Amino acid sequence: MNQRIGYPDGETVRIRTATLGDLPDIVRMLADDPLGATREQYRSPLPDTYVAAFSAIDGDPNNELVVLELLGAVKGVLQLTFIPHITHQGGWRALVEGVRVDSGSRSLGLGRRMFDWAIERSRERGCHLLQLTTDKARPEALRFYEDLGFVASHEGMKLRL
Amino acid sequence: MNQRIGYPDGETVRIRTATLGDLPDIVRMLADDPLGATREQYRSPLPDTYVAAFSAIDGDPNNELVVLELLGAVKGVLQLTFIPHITHQGGWRALVEGVRVDSGSRSLGLGRRMFDWAIERSRERGCHLLQLTTDKARPEALRFYEDLGFVASHEGMKLRL
Repeated sequence: MNQRIGYPDGETVRIRTATLGDLPDIVRMLADDPLGATREQYRSPLPDTYVAAFSAIDGDPNNELVVLELLGAVKGVLQLTFIPHITHQGGWRALVEGVRVDSGSRSLGLGRRMFDWAIERSRERGCHLLQLTTDKARPEALRFYEDLGFVASHEGMKLRL
Repeated sequence: MNQRIGYPDGETVRIRTATLGDLPDIVRMLADDPLGATREQYRSPLPDTYVAAFSAIDGDPNNELVVLELLGAVKGVLQLTFIPHITHQGGWRALVEGVRVDSGSRSLGLGRRMFDWAIERSRERGCHLLQLTTDKARPEALRFYEDLGFVASHEGMKLRL
């Protein structure tokens, strides 16, 4: 989908576009979490809805699903969506969703590495703002984002349909 | 862009896809607001960046910019973005941004009408969630969204790039 998405770093960490073959690892990481466990279905074969969503993301130039590899093993995931808006004089924004680091690989700075990449990538795409919503039930995530420079200036509101 | 976007209602209110000709009305409404006044440029001709953003939205099947007409005059605007995600078993979400009702037409229920439309449209597109962020400096907007059933379960975090 794009050529500049990966970068090597002493060959230990690589961030690259996700492939269909990564989907089981991605769903495993999403499900391995107190909130994720209640809403994901990590089984083999995976429910078709995951594959359909992967295809929709993969076919859309404004969506990028990336994984972080540590020594060749998938240890993190993140999705970026680039959105044109009329507000802010027609400014593009990037939205981050579905961030997860493997539960066995925490405290290695991998989340930070993924966000450094996401910030750089969003700038490349001409975005003036990177935004996300984080569940108020995850205070440690809030601190992580504040350390990165995110400001909790907004309420993140959701309506189930 | 899509055929089912407008609906008549006793011929007084209509919600329809925005056209390029609506852009001055849209920017005027966005600029006519304490926060918008600091970041928009409502002048003639409009800055090219607005036109470029309009074209990007108009050409993307996952973005819909709509206006509300009251007796033929544009009195409201809203943008919907439909996003496929891996989370929630590959669920699609809709994101609302750039909501504004003309300052001379408040308290007529026009905002509610736009959201009724947005909720219905998001369901049509198969979304399981409608989400938005609202500036904590707009307490009246927070109440409006809570009345519609939105829950402020998340922090809305922004990082300027």
